[in-house]
Amino acid sequence: MMLCVNLICPIMVNAEDRKIIVKFGKHLAKLRTEKGLSQRELSHRCRIDYSKIGAMERGEVNLTLVSMVELARGLEISPSLLLNWD
Amino acid sequence: MMLCVNLICPIMVNAEDRKIIVKFGKHLAKLRTEKGLSQRELSHRCRIDYSKIGAMERGEVNLTLVSMVELARGLEISPSLLLNWD
Repeated sequence: MMLCVNLICPIMVNAEDRKIIVKFGKHLAKLRTEKGLSQRELSHRCRIDYSKIGAMERGEVNLTLVSMVELARGLEISPSLLLNWD
Repeated sequence: MMLCVNLICPIMVNAEDRKIIVKFGKHLAKLRTEKGLSQRELSHRCRIDYSKIGAMERGEVNLTLVSMVELARGLEISPSLLLNWD
């Protein structure tokens, strides 16, 4: 088993990063509601706890690649759409 | 300053996650070479050390949203292209 890096450590994020994280959160909420899913329903479709989905949508989580692919699976969309917010 | 979460903790990643991370790494290398950039040149264009870019391309890093947007900035592409590998 290859040691790899996964989840996330709580350290400070600069203002520019924070804008990205908040923007992603709003985009995620939009994608989820467009699918007519609650946070809990989305969490049942992917390996992410609904409380974490809430935190992501509030712009509190600088989530990882694996979490993004997992969210896309739950939303039944291509992962690239998660970063297509402009 | 809002406490947020950013970088990454070294814990084990399962086989499915590992495939995603390795796939992303190959895709990143392809995008970078298509731009005619070395890892060092890409690192000069964004806030990511070239050694970390190498680790990402070898499929050893489950990078974060902020790192992805930073890579896209350095590659001068839309962030969504980083997750468009199928």
